[in-house]
Amino acid sequence: MYLVMVYDVSEERVSKVLKVARKYLNWIQNSVLEGEITDANLLKLKKELKEVIDENYDSVIFYILPNKKNLIRDNMGVLKNSDFNII
Amino acid sequence: MYLVMVYDVSEERVSKVLKVARKYLNWIQNSVLEGEITDANLLKLKKELKEVIDENYDSVIFYILPNKKNLIRDNMGVLKNSDFNII
Repeated sequence: MYLVMVYDVSEERVSKVLKVARKYLNWIQNSVLEGEITDANLLKLKKELKEVIDENYDSVIFYILPNKKNLIRDNMGVLKNSDFNII
Repeated sequence: MYLVMVYDVSEERVSKVLKVARKYLNWIQNSVLEGEITDANLLKLKKELKEVIDENYDSVIFYILPNKKNLIRDNMGVLKNSDFNII
């Protein structure tokens, strides 16, 4: 399946969240990662995130799609991750 | 169609970007908005954003789907917009 992850976490936990998320996904821009992921890896990702976020304060959203067939990514302005300009 | 918009813009332009985006979409969490949108309104949104962002520095990504039928939104931690917990 295809995953877009967006996080809104306190500054002091950003680097930990990023370190975990980058194991499974591609960094796109500030607070956004995406990529193909298996069910098993999504479970691992969530488990590892649970250990680093404060669930009373931080928020992580997973947009999950069966595949990226019907997903269009359209960019405006600078593309922060220039290696990843085609979805 | 269904749109998830994520932005990564300089602090001094965040409020302007938000003001424009909120005319068309629902605020979800820091840097993320989403909602049903027509082609015409997406064009308007892009045009208005173009006037407030610095295209040499800022980045806005639009994830566009034909509908939200196959989209699952899964939250972890706090739901920042508690009015909008069902996709």
